[in-house]
Amino acid sequence: MNKEITLAYGGGGEETQKLIKDLFYRYFENPILLRGEDSGILPPLEGEIAFTTDGFTISPLFFNGGNIGKLAVVGTANDLAMAGAKPCYLTGSFMIEEGLEWETLEKIVQSMGKVLKEEGILLVGGDTKVVPKGSVDKLFISTSGIGEIRYRGISASNLQPGDKIVISGEIGRHGAVILAHRYGVETDLTSDCAPLWERVEKLIGEGIKIKALRDATRGGLSALLNEWAEASGVEIGVEEEKISVPDGVMGLCELFGFDPLDLANEGTFAVAVAPEDATRTREILRLFNPNAQIIGEVREGKGVVLESPWGTSRYLELPKGELLPRIC
Amino acid sequence: MNKEITLAYGGGGEETQKLIKDLFYRYFENPILLRGEDSGILPPLEGEIAFTTDGFTISPLFFNGGNIGKLAVVGTANDLAMAGAKPCYLTGSFMIEEGLEWETLEKIVQSMGKVLKEEGILLVGGDTKVVPKGSVDKLFISTSGIGEIRYRGISASNLQPGDKIVISGEIGRHGAVILAHRYGVETDLTSDCAPLWERVEKLIGEGIKIKALRDATRGGLSALLNEWAEASGVEIGVEEEKISVPDGVMGLCELFGFDPLDLANEGTFAVAVAPEDATRTREILRLFNPNAQIIGEVREGKGVVLESPWGTSRYLELPKGELLPRIC
Repeated sequence: MNKEITLAYGGGGEETQKLIKDLFYRYFENPILLRGEDSGILPPLEGEIAFTTDGFTISPLFFNGGNIGKLAVVGTANDLAMAGAKPCYLTGSFMIEEGLEWETLEKIVQSMGKVLKEEGILLVGGDTKVVPKGSVDKLFISTSGIGEIRYRGISASNLQPGDKIVISGEIGRHGAVILAHRYGVETDLTSDCAPLWERVEKLIGEGIKIKALRDATRGGLSALLNEWAEASGVEIGVEEEKISVPDGVMGLCELFGFDPLDLANEGTFAVAVAPEDATRTREILRLFNPNAQIIGEVREGKGVVLESPWGTSRYLELPKGELLPRIC
Repeated sequence: MNKEITLAYGGGGEETQKLIKDLFYRYFENPILLRGEDSGILPPLEGEIAFTTDGFTISPLFFNGGNIGKLAVVGTANDLAMAGAKPCYLTGSFMIEEGLEWETLEKIVQSMGKVLKEEGILLVGGDTKVVPKGSVDKLFISTSGIGEIRYRGISASNLQPGDKIVISGEIGRHGAVILAHRYGVETDLTSDCAPLWERVEKLIGEGIKIKALRDATRGGLSALLNEWAEASGVEIGVEEEKISVPDGVMGLCELFGFDPLDLANEGTFAVAVAPEDATRTREILRLFNPNAQIIGEVREGKGVVLESPWGTSRYLELPKGELLPRIC
């Protein structure tokens, strides 16, 4: 029998206790959570801390390379990593539509538990709401995270003329996979959904002076570079042919009229460094992904300029509108 | 013209920036948030910290005495207060249905800003998703909070025979108000939705040895007392006539067949103290609400026993099922 989540599981009574114990305690097991209080009590944290939140409304719930649960852990952990912080603690708020299969929720919670364990992150608090059919589409999750700052001074407004932009890998995989699923197109492509702290930690450990650091999520690399250019009051010149776009991503973009630069990524970031750090940054990132590349440089000016191998150039705009809703 | 939130506001591009700047930065203004990075960077926190999250799916969005925004701040701040922690920092994750009026969202964000300011809490990070019509009912909000522990050792499992249970005020207001709105019944009743840290701080400052502390939210006082009895392996005896229930709450309960003890509260808590602290605890809480009262005591045994003024008694069960969905 395929058990369903009913409204009773969100009522705060006996069934809610069952949901918490049979599902959340089982896969998120750690002493802080198991104390069973409304707040997780954390030991003192060292120095400055990073605090972030992210909401996940992705459709479909399961996609090549992940599901909403893995994404909810990875997305928030990556926000912390991008602040130079080691992800330490997470909370999860679950908004569940009445009728969701227990088995579906369990698979999602299980994959959250797996990536939490791999990354050494503790989920220390949660909340569950079950709402009547039609009030939410299947499942939304919000996660929040706390990390200890291991590298100070990362900021979108740090870019100076001469700085180089290095990207950690190929772009467009997450957005393209969701696009394919949504329109029923078969694809072998997988989302790049993956935690990034290990790479950031390696850059820090190797003494790279990180100026700006950001994962290219909603709005893709276009949004990221435009935000940096604006925040720092500079122009960013990008060599288009240096950006690696998988064939599968390119094919889907041609089919649906998207620009790979606008597509969301969930495990790909850009880092701005001084010119003398650029090659070493690329080499460190290539230990994790052979497609890491120096893609551009910072200049006096304004905006993001995309340069083709044939010497032509065009401004890369901040994407407008909603290209594809519910990608994360 | 009544502007609406379109999908574009959630796309991560230009319109998302506008929503963040015109709405969130305006009402939540503080230097940490205005840095505009994905994570808020907090100065070092003293000692142990409490970390919690809560999801809000309440319907209707506006109710007598508050709205989903005020509730989202108060609810999470109260979770921290109930851990003996001063609420310091919050994050907010907004899940918005395409077509929600800008004005509605602005009112909600404005009232969040108001209560944050009054309580001296900084909102340091947020996330906004806009989903297509029908994917969520108007607006869900998840908030997470960090607080500095000011009193250690509060736990649901601390109750010992002889301890007294003190309640901070009358019960059932929040649940009854939502019930009335949902069924179109006119009522003068207002939700008790209010921050509780000031009262907890006063108890701590006056040297009250707090054993257990919990606000009577989902599942009401019934759920709270049953959880304490179970966690501590004790019986809790409650004098029914000591519990203050407003006439408006009683009337609605009779009309709809609810027990006021099962109704949610959003600004009412119970505290367990040693017998020698009980009267002083009540007097301190009466500075804030004249209906604060010593309602019961802890004994050897199991479960929660409700005693009538006529000498009869009955077990008060953990509420089963979902009495009224989307009350918070």
